[in-house]
Amino acid sequence: MYKETSLEEVDAILAKAGQAYRELKRYSIRQRAAFMRAVAVEIEALGNELIKTAMNESHLTEARLTGERARTILQWNSYANYAELGNWLDVRIDMPFLSPSTKPDIRKISVALGPVAVFGAGNFPFAFSTAGGDTACAIAAGCPVVVKAHPGHPQTCALMAQAIEKARVKCRMPEGIFAQVYGAGIEIGQVLVKHPGIKAVAFTGSYQGGKALTEMAAQRSEPIPVFAEMGSINPVFLLPEKLKKDGNEVAGQFITSVTLGVGQFCTNPGLMIGIAGEELNSFTAALEKLAHDAPPATMLHPGIAANYEKTREKALRQQEVEVLAQSGIEAAENQGGITLAKVSAHTFTANPALQEEVFGPYSLLVVCQNADEMLAVANAIKGQLTATLIATGADLEANRELYEVIQERCGRIVVNQFPTGVEVCLAMHHGGPYPATSNSAFTSVGADGIKRFTRPLSFQNWPNQYLPAELQNENPLEVWRTINNELTLEAINLTVTSL
Amino acid sequence: MYKETSLEEVDAILAKAGQAYRELKRYSIRQRAAFMRAVAVEIEALGNELIKTAMNESHLTEARLTGERARTILQWNSYANYAELGNWLDVRIDMPFLSPSTKPDIRKISVALGPVAVFGAGNFPFAFSTAGGDTACAIAAGCPVVVKAHPGHPQTCALMAQAIEKARVKCRMPEGIFAQVYGAGIEIGQVLVKHPGIKAVAFTGSYQGGKALTEMAAQRSEPIPVFAEMGSINPVFLLPEKLKKDGNEVAGQFITSVTLGVGQFCTNPGLMIGIAGEELNSFTAALEKLAHDAPPATMLHPGIAANYEKTREKALRQQEVEVLAQSGIEAAENQGGITLAKVSAHTFTANPALQEEVFGPYSLLVVCQNADEMLAVANAIKGQLTATLIATGADLEANRELYEVIQERCGRIVVNQFPTGVEVCLAMHHGGPYPATSNSAFTSVGADGIKRFTRPLSFQNWPNQYLPAELQNENPLEVWRTINNELTLEAINLTVTSL
Repeated sequence: MYKETSLEEVDAILAKAGQAYRELKRYSIRQRAAFMRAVAVEIEALGNELIKTAMNESHLTEARLTGERARTILQWNSYANYAELGNWLDVRIDMPFLSPSTKPDIRKISVALGPVAVFGAGNFPFAFSTAGGDTACAIAAGCPVVVKAHPGHPQTCALMAQAIEKARVKCRMPEGIFAQVYGAGIEIGQVLVKHPGIKAVAFTGSYQGGKALTEMAAQRSEPIPVFAEMGSINPVFLLPEKLKKDGNEVAGQFITSVTLGVGQFCTNPGLMIGIAGEELNSFTAALEKLAHDAPPATMLHPGIAANYEKTREKALRQQEVEVLAQSGIEAAENQGGITLAKVSAHTFTANPALQEEVFGPYSLLVVCQNADEMLAVANAIKGQLTATLIATGADLEANRELYEVIQERCGRIVVNQFPTGVEVCLAMHHGGPYPATSNSAFTSVGADGIKRFTRPLSFQNWPNQYLPAELQNENPLEVWRTINNELTLEAINLTVTSL
Repeated sequence: MYKETSLEEVDAILAKAGQAYRELKRYSIRQRAAFMRAVAVEIEALGNELIKTAMNESHLTEARLTGERARTILQWNSYANYAELGNWLDVRIDMPFLSPSTKPDIRKISVALGPVAVFGAGNFPFAFSTAGGDTACAIAAGCPVVVKAHPGHPQTCALMAQAIEKARVKCRMPEGIFAQVYGAGIEIGQVLVKHPGIKAVAFTGSYQGGKALTEMAAQRSEPIPVFAEMGSINPVFLLPEKLKKDGNEVAGQFITSVTLGVGQFCTNPGLMIGIAGEELNSFTAALEKLAHDAPPATMLHPGIAANYEKTREKALRQQEVEVLAQSGIEAAENQGGITLAKVSAHTFTANPALQEEVFGPYSLLVVCQNADEMLAVANAIKGQLTATLIATGADLEANRELYEVIQERCGRIVVNQFPTGVEVCLAMHHGGPYPATSNSAFTSVGADGIKRFTRPLSFQNWPNQYLPAELQNENPLEVWRTINNELTLEAINLTVTSL
């Protein structure tokens, strides 16, 4: 169904992608959106074969994969809608004729960067892989995509590539708009990132992987941006009044969140911070009972399960770390069982190793003696995708400095919900300060993710008919534009306004 | 009036900046805007002393400096206005209650990155230095600023710092919102960029300087973004019909542009590309005459004049480069006189050294044999701040591939005007692909320049009163927001919509 790509083939693939980039300029955002909707249709048409193949490769359940397929289809359709709305184009028009002066007519729009290399994630074989959000965003922006197929689920990747190719043929899009390369080793990915034909990189995976690609891209003679989402331990701050009021309910929600998908989410709550006392004691008692009853489950593949074992053992070997609770059911081969540990705030702030991600159903409780220690922990925490406050209004009122510090350290801050589950919507930010991502200015989920693959371009004094359609007076594609500082969908009516 | 800053003082300066960053969260954008307008007032109040000091240090004329001061004052006032409008905040609100579901309430806003280090330019002692656009943008975003005073005009920098401090005291802004460090060497700048208290860097200057800072920032344990504007040779493509029709007029405009400010602008047109023939011959004859009559003028300082001499000689020593025209008046000490050279397209595309910037009133004409060669030159050109087409409608019609390729290589594309003169407006993009800048996604002129110093942050399920004011239902600061995909200035009326 697929074969390894030789390093020699990469030049030809990128020549086609470069050609497609030029050809795509002759296609409107509406044509790109129609293609994206056709991809959604073809993914659905893969039917049960897609689910079976992914189950076989990823060990995820049928229910989970069916849900993820629905999310993936939703992504293609909603990115298509967003692409057409055109907010992401950030169209700005400054027209001197409305207030006569010697100033030039200047119009700005976001344009596509060029071919994009995408490295998907192992834990989302549909939604963050070959036909995932990065690919959809890049195509929405007008960029051809070359995906490095994930070695954990290459058959699934190959099926998705077929679906995209079918849609491409049906919609008569340029041949090089999408390509996929296959290889178990890291060489093929390195060749891609170093290739002058690639103009941006999207990556979802480990800190080590993201860091290596970012450095490689920075060392090119023409450096290119890398949008790497590198994971996170997603601290949950447990404030006393809320724990007192709803501790048992919160414990239940926490256990659900930390064991969701066997803890294999970048938004998994891998860290809790509480203040010693009666409320925390009764909360941890509830956790212990729930953890004890939580069954282990099969992880994505044997390598992930082995890595969970290894990193968890390393975390538990750190000085003064104690096991707080564990599943009472022994994990079978390739399974991961919940493990909760605890440590003092003093030890936590002194040992950066305690902030390393343990990818699986693991979480560390940091026990503070008082609110000042909790603030010190917040100040010591590295950049995160998310952070959560379990808090009443009074808890927030009493801890403004705390939540302001937490805001500095994350991309999404949640109150009284858990961070697993990343809604695909315009207001979503799935990103965060380093080392959660390599570029805190951009999101990898939600419509603004399209912006990663664009840059602004201003047109000065251009004849109307040679401008991109979105900048022409008539606004034929009906996108939102800021004209002389006013946001509007209106066309520019020269016959009236130039009098 | 100023003293060199010791390396030991930097820690204390950044501790204050960090403190100010936290304090600034309690100030609204309206308070920041009021402070920015007060800075504009205090710059004006420096009066003639500012002009005299800058004339003395920069050798720019009184008329030029008076104009640049007006531009600088305009910048502070217009960034203040933009800050208040709030478009740059990219507020997005997704509210499930409008279409009942289990989806969370998510609201996104751009937040300040933290203290910013600013390295100004020697050629704009007001508009791109201590109190220049980078400083104004960072403060608009809510970031304290530490400026490395430009060693070419330190007294001017010190005066501007005084004006900012006066405004700060009057507006009761936090003490660490602005600081300036002084040093003739490069150490103090390196200490700043490597300091963990600095979260972003803005730089305007040479490719070498920008590249060094970008690499330094990438090597930090917490890498930070560097927005370096590193110059450009701003190609001008001369298309035949337009040359035939208006060659003499274009020659005059070109000479005005290339000698403006003794060629010391990052948008100086340092490259022309034409097609051999009668039209080009008569155009170059006009250029020769005009260049011969153009008087040399004093450059910014002796180092700049010496560097102009050196880089021009190096350019003229390249194989097959010929002098096309020169000023007939001999340049006095520290003056720069116009020099135009020419070379064949074939030689140009084979020799990257011909794309190195000659900072001064210099331009190279690349003579192509036909339109295909002109396209080959366009394809060989590196990233630029601007590119210009001198063209009739018919020229554009016949050269679509050419102008599409040129668009890939610049940040602003101009028709029948010259690129010197960078309007401060929302539609302006002053940026471009590498090596024109280190980050093609952002502009250093115009309201969107504020975005360089922000990152998005999403709030999920937050109680209304603890949200930033711009995200609260009532929209008390009256900023533009995208609510459930609709752009609006309206407040959210819960009593009606939550029924």
